[in-house]
Amino acid sequence: MKVAVDAMGGDHAPRAVVTGALQAVQRYRCSVVLVGDEEIVARELERQKRVPEEVEVIHADEVVGMDEPAITPIRRKRRSSIRVCCELVREGRAKAIVTAGNTGAAMISAKMVIGTIDGVDRPALAEVLPNQKGGQTVLLDLGANVDARPSHLLQFAIMGHFWAQEMVGTASPRVGLMSIGAEEGKGTDLTREVFRVMKTTGLNFVGNVEGRDVYNGEVDVVVCDGFVGNVILKTSESLANLFGSMLREELGRSWRSRLGYLLARPAFESFRRRTDYREWGASPLLGLRGGCFIAHGSSNPKAIRNAVRRAAVFCEHDLHNKIREKVAQLHREERRLLSLQSA
Amino acid sequence: MKVAVDAMGGDHAPRAVVTGALQAVQRYRCSVVLVGDEEIVARELERQKRVPEEVEVIHADEVVGMDEPAITPIRRKRRSSIRVCCELVREGRAKAIVTAGNTGAAMISAKMVIGTIDGVDRPALAEVLPNQKGGQTVLLDLGANVDARPSHLLQFAIMGHFWAQEMVGTASPRVGLMSIGAEEGKGTDLTREVFRVMKTTGLNFVGNVEGRDVYNGEVDVVVCDGFVGNVILKTSESLANLFGSMLREELGRSWRSRLGYLLARPAFESFRRRTDYREWGASPLLGLRGGCFIAHGSSNPKAIRNAVRRAAVFCEHDLHNKIREKVAQLHREERRLLSLQSA
Repeated sequence: MKVAVDAMGGDHAPRAVVTGALQAVQRYRCSVVLVGDEEIVARELERQKRVPEEVEVIHADEVVGMDEPAITPIRRKRRSSIRVCCELVREGRAKAIVTAGNTGAAMISAKMVIGTIDGVDRPALAEVLPNQKGGQTVLLDLGANVDARPSHLLQFAIMGHFWAQEMVGTASPRVGLMSIGAEEGKGTDLTREVFRVMKTTGLNFVGNVEGRDVYNGEVDVVVCDGFVGNVILKTSESLANLFGSMLREELGRSWRSRLGYLLARPAFESFRRRTDYREWGASPLLGLRGGCFIAHGSSNPKAIRNAVRRAAVFCEHDLHNKIREKVAQLHREERRLLSLQSA
Repeated sequence: MKVAVDAMGGDHAPRAVVTGALQAVQRYRCSVVLVGDEEIVARELERQKRVPEEVEVIHADEVVGMDEPAITPIRRKRRSSIRVCCELVREGRAKAIVTAGNTGAAMISAKMVIGTIDGVDRPALAEVLPNQKGGQTVLLDLGANVDARPSHLLQFAIMGHFWAQEMVGTASPRVGLMSIGAEEGKGTDLTREVFRVMKTTGLNFVGNVEGRDVYNGEVDVVVCDGFVGNVILKTSESLANLFGSMLREELGRSWRSRLGYLLARPAFESFRRRTDYREWGASPLLGLRGGCFIAHGSSNPKAIRNAVRRAAVFCEHDLHNKIREKVAQLHREERRLLSLQSA
């Protein structure tokens, strides 16, 4: 069960990507295929202390730049590393991909080349965020879709449910719908329609949630459209930076504070690790016929290592069959309800 | 130029409200009218050490509870303290109101009783947030409107511009439109339409911004619809709490860290103050024929004091005339363009 790694994608590619992928092979016994210009990748491999035998390299002529249009691997660069990764999954030669390259290009390639699960219209980008109860909350969609319809949000809820169950280990995930008030009537036309349908899915739907529920641990899955999810994630990153810099500024104001900071430094380091994207590695794009993990453009080897590990764990679970069955079951119930209504 | 204070609104009313309002009178020489049940308010005033002569009390029979429908002061409780506050502004007996009561009820009363400026369709709730450049960023709307049209967002931009200019003191505020990518084509149908129109307003419009720009100091005003703004604000509050508790947890793990924390405590206190809503007091509801400041339900005397101070500063500025003139100017230009096109 191999993981195809886009060796050319990311601000620090290929070095950080190759290094991280090899670390994953050595530490977690993952099986990886490095996809990229074979000369460049070979040169990187030569720099590494030890290259495990299991590491395979597959050549790809082209690279999609970080600033190129998302559609590039479909229209123009059909031999780009990101597209070749996706083709390996489609052909069954890999089970999942990891990329730190152009996010839009990765999402489009995954959707067009790997394809979505039967019954799923659109893949959704998810994130697993730490919460105040010491657990983790799944937030999706984070920007794969901006003009979402009610059926899309319903599918996101199902994907989020299984992700929380299989990958986070929450037995019966509480699923909440992002809105601006707990009552059923609150929100937009979209959220009101989704609320009405969500109640009938058999998921553990707890109703509308608000921005505060992303981090307070009251729910396990938060469903929203890609516009709102993207804003939440980017605002959070920005606020985290603001907190960091305000705290450093305050702690630098006096000798006493600076001494205190030095003594408490291990705690700060541990805190930083818990809030650092490099620790968690990558965000899953859910709803595909294979795994797709999108890492931060600025990923270092550790981020890539963690992303590959996550992808390998994903491969062991049969997540997309579970999602497909649940979506199909809801479709059957819907048809049954429709036929009852028309009878 | 009096500020009408809703003495009955908030989790700690009337005590925290009356105490905070009197502090504002004493410290900042604000002029306030306390609105509420006169017996209850009189009893609170008796408990205070010193009551300045300028403090006036106006009786209101009723109170809108925190859980009552927003429409209550319009339909059922027409003698409620929040509504009486708004009537004082309409009648010119006060210039602004401050309330920590039911937010929805306050917004509806303000809109229906005080009324909006000519040319403004809907008031917008704004917040002034600290940013990484050490400045402040105005974010609006925060939930007064969920189904916003392009013209509403345009009006929000104008209000945000003047708020940043008059109240924050930014000479030429950079106005950004919340979206999920900087390019003009990015975002939803709504944001694309607003982008197109915003370019023609003469405001210092810098284009689309992303979630990260709320706190990074790259813009002075961020415009979004009320759904998105509400989610941003509540997510931020929740993340701030998460950071606080993670940091406390980490700092409590060893004796060394705990000692470090004690030494650095003044820095933590200062940091906490900078990120604490009680420091800034209240959010302005803009676009009305008077000032309206909505404080947190859990406001303590300090929050109320700061809110009253802010309201008093607002009264000295001629904000709503400036907003009205700008809106009227844009309307004239629009008509001129339309007549040019049809000529």
